[in-house]
Amino acid sequence: MDGVVRAAWEARGSLVDRGVRVGFLRGAADLLEESSASLVEVADAETALGGVRLRGELARTCYQLRAFAEVVEEGSFLGVIIDHPDAGAVPPVPDLRRFKVPLGVVAVYAASNFPFAFSVAGGDTASALAAGCPVVVKAHPDHPGLSERVAGVLRRAAVRWGLPEGVVGLVHGFEAGVALVAHPLVAGAGFTGSVRGGRALFDAAAGRPVPIPFHGELGSLNPVVVTEGAAAERAEEIGAGLGGSMTLGVGQFCVKPGLVLVPASGEGDRLVEALAGVVAQAPVGVLLDGRMRDSFVAGVAQRAALVDVECPVEPGGEGERGVRAGFMTVPADRLTGPGAHDVLLEECFGPVTVVARYRQEAQVDAVLARVPGNLTATVHLSTAESRGEGRGGEWLGRLTPLAGRVLVNGWPTGVAVAPAQHHGGPYPATTSTSTSVGATAIERWLRPVAYQSTPQALLPPELRDDNPLGLPRRVNGRPQR
Amino acid sequence: MDGVVRAAWEARGSLVDRGVRVGFLRGAADLLEESSASLVEVADAETALGGVRLRGELARTCYQLRAFAEVVEEGSFLGVIIDHPDAGAVPPVPDLRRFKVPLGVVAVYAASNFPFAFSVAGGDTASALAAGCPVVVKAHPDHPGLSERVAGVLRRAAVRWGLPEGVVGLVHGFEAGVALVAHPLVAGAGFTGSVRGGRALFDAAAGRPVPIPFHGELGSLNPVVVTEGAAAERAEEIGAGLGGSMTLGVGQFCVKPGLVLVPASGEGDRLVEALAGVVAQAPVGVLLDGRMRDSFVAGVAQRAALVDVECPVEPGGEGERGVRAGFMTVPADRLTGPGAHDVLLEECFGPVTVVARYRQEAQVDAVLARVPGNLTATVHLSTAESRGEGRGGEWLGRLTPLAGRVLVNGWPTGVAVAPAQHHGGPYPATTSTSTSVGATAIERWLRPVAYQSTPQALLPPELRDDNPLGLPRRVNGRPQR
Repeated sequence: MDGVVRAAWEARGSLVDRGVRVGFLRGAADLLEESSASLVEVADAETALGGVRLRGELARTCYQLRAFAEVVEEGSFLGVIIDHPDAGAVPPVPDLRRFKVPLGVVAVYAASNFPFAFSVAGGDTASALAAGCPVVVKAHPDHPGLSERVAGVLRRAAVRWGLPEGVVGLVHGFEAGVALVAHPLVAGAGFTGSVRGGRALFDAAAGRPVPIPFHGELGSLNPVVVTEGAAAERAEEIGAGLGGSMTLGVGQFCVKPGLVLVPASGEGDRLVEALAGVVAQAPVGVLLDGRMRDSFVAGVAQRAALVDVECPVEPGGEGERGVRAGFMTVPADRLTGPGAHDVLLEECFGPVTVVARYRQEAQVDAVLARVPGNLTATVHLSTAESRGEGRGGEWLGRLTPLAGRVLVNGWPTGVAVAPAQHHGGPYPATTSTSTSVGATAIERWLRPVAYQSTPQALLPPELRDDNPLGLPRRVNGRPQR
Repeated sequence: MDGVVRAAWEARGSLVDRGVRVGFLRGAADLLEESSASLVEVADAETALGGVRLRGELARTCYQLRAFAEVVEEGSFLGVIIDHPDAGAVPPVPDLRRFKVPLGVVAVYAASNFPFAFSVAGGDTASALAAGCPVVVKAHPDHPGLSERVAGVLRRAAVRWGLPEGVVGLVHGFEAGVALVAHPLVAGAGFTGSVRGGRALFDAAAGRPVPIPFHGELGSLNPVVVTEGAAAERAEEIGAGLGGSMTLGVGQFCVKPGLVLVPASGEGDRLVEALAGVVAQAPVGVLLDGRMRDSFVAGVAQRAALVDVECPVEPGGEGERGVRAGFMTVPADRLTGPGAHDVLLEECFGPVTVVARYRQEAQVDAVLARVPGNLTATVHLSTAESRGEGRGGEWLGRLTPLAGRVLVNGWPTGVAVAPAQHHGGPYPATTSTSTSVGATAIERWLRPVAYQSTPQALLPPELRDDNPLGLPRRVNGRPQR
């Protein structure tokens, strides 16, 4: 591990040139696409996610590498701000020029459920390389062979662009992972995984003699509220949509809707029936590893045994390796007050969701007040409420404190790679205020530096008066290109 | 303390409107100016900093409040990004609209050495209020009376703008400070002070069940390098400038130059002589409190007793309350290798600096490699080096890893309030990558939220298609106003 980190550290100077980074990121996407067939084969053998899903995920991964190349090319991520001297300020302002520089070596902890998009060549790696930081990936033990193959592709792309192979390192094993976040030459870390593992690494990062930023995505319940008006208008459509979203990818998405507040009315009953119809038809699936299967089977059994919890479609194990999708219903007031079923407010990874039936809207607020931080929060509204009528206009304000992405009349599964994306949220959704998907994910791996009264001849080109790189900048408080 | 935090939390909704925040910040500046005479009197009685310095600092504080009002008015801090649907992306992009929302209640730990500018109405408070966050200040025990007065002025301004008094709370005492960072309703913290105190609070913030961002400014040595060429050209000027900078404000600035690398040549000797001339003339000063005076007296004695350390002007105590400015010299190689004088690489608060004499430039790099993270790093170059000749062009690259602000041919004391300012740096200078001075300090108290597929009628005005507030935004990857 130490040698891998040192090689990455030695390679940091090779990433200073933005043009080289752009070429490297695009070249990596090209090479991944060229190797697509064999990579998907290795991935499927290790994860059982299937060719269709994996080809889609690889396409997303290449798209993301190219999207970050565009971010680097465009240059506003550098946050260039230039202030000319101002004797009238209090105190007077000297010549000040600020931009952002790479943090240093970034440790990336790969996820199991996205062997391409949140793993060796995933968003953390792409954004860190885009920022100019070498990367050392801790491979996920569920796909070690694929991790080696993808790291090999990235290194080949690096060499083609004249970069040392060390810009992308790979380590395996629990102990290497623990040691990695404590290594003095590691300057930041990205993580996608469980609350338990992520919190342990977060604590280690914060406990170092020199603490480092730790951007972890740990867990999310992703609450959904269906208003009475929405249920009255579209009970079957919403129930079917929920069934599709919660069983997608065998429920192995961090944005799977895990708690759904549905009116305890006849319309709500129709929604639950439609949900049952879809979920009962979901094929038996295979989870990413045996440990996850055990957690799922034990987790659904624990929840199903609680007072007043019913299972219209019972989730659980099927055969030696499979799992059946299912869901539970519970009266909303079982989630609040003394003796509340707190475990129903914890994420259960896999194809299961909890439908909480509410009689008054006050119960919805009481439940939402107890939900931990989330990646997403969703509301389904009636047509009139969607126009802002009734209490429709209040929903964004009620859901915003809960999550980093708020959806209206949609489903949280499917996380677009886009400039406005925010994939993060209050703890435990993420351990920082940052995103791991979308253009602004690059901000995690940079720190600002200001240069004061520095002669033009010494300034980096990004900060010179003549702006030779044509960067977007703010000069004396105003945007200028 | 609990009641103060709850009052702040209850007040959070009152700060949603940006126009109200702008008025409140400007109104607070106006009221502080109106009360200037009595505030400076109270401040001088508690800090002994003197009327001239305190009036200047209050003017800076008011300037800063107004500067943040401008930041709020201009609106780019909201980071509005809008992506229209794009079916061609992989995966397809839905309608996504992102901006930043306030974190919640912010705890501010006031500093002793800036009773106005880094205290109750200082940069942390101003930037948090600008972001829309209510503030609870932990008063510094060195100026409790002033803290109450300033908090009273801020609350009067709040009430004038229709805000509840609770938007600015104040607590006193060590135990309240420890409890404050652990309070469940506190969402972030800002701190300026010592490494020991700051690290303890940082650890507490990270160790919470729900960790919160802790933006602490803890300590900085602020290294300065004088090249042989610079010493040859301007030995006396540089020595005198250094003497002025290190004794300014009785050496009680976080950006005081605490380590200066000077050639061990005849030109270097002339620099040291000029420095001695200025420092010997510095008036006896009074430090902010008795504990600081004890630390200073003990710290300089410990350093002066080290092998090969000399004191051309001896620093130390003078009378019952006073301190004498002074400085030490040491051969640079005493700062590296086995048995190095590590304590000389630690900040000593007060009017003292360490001049390390080097024979080869390699010694400079060896010393700089051992210096902890800094707020500032400075180099003094010859005229030719300032044009990039010789090795002059390399200095920015060598100093950038050390600090958040890099100066050429200047002195780090004096921190301008400006858009491009960065007052922060690698740990222990700060515990995060943020700044506590300048426009971007507002970023510390915000988190992004993305709204997906949300009807126009429900969107906040900041994100609507018609941009009713005229905000700077990025739409489909391009800047647009």
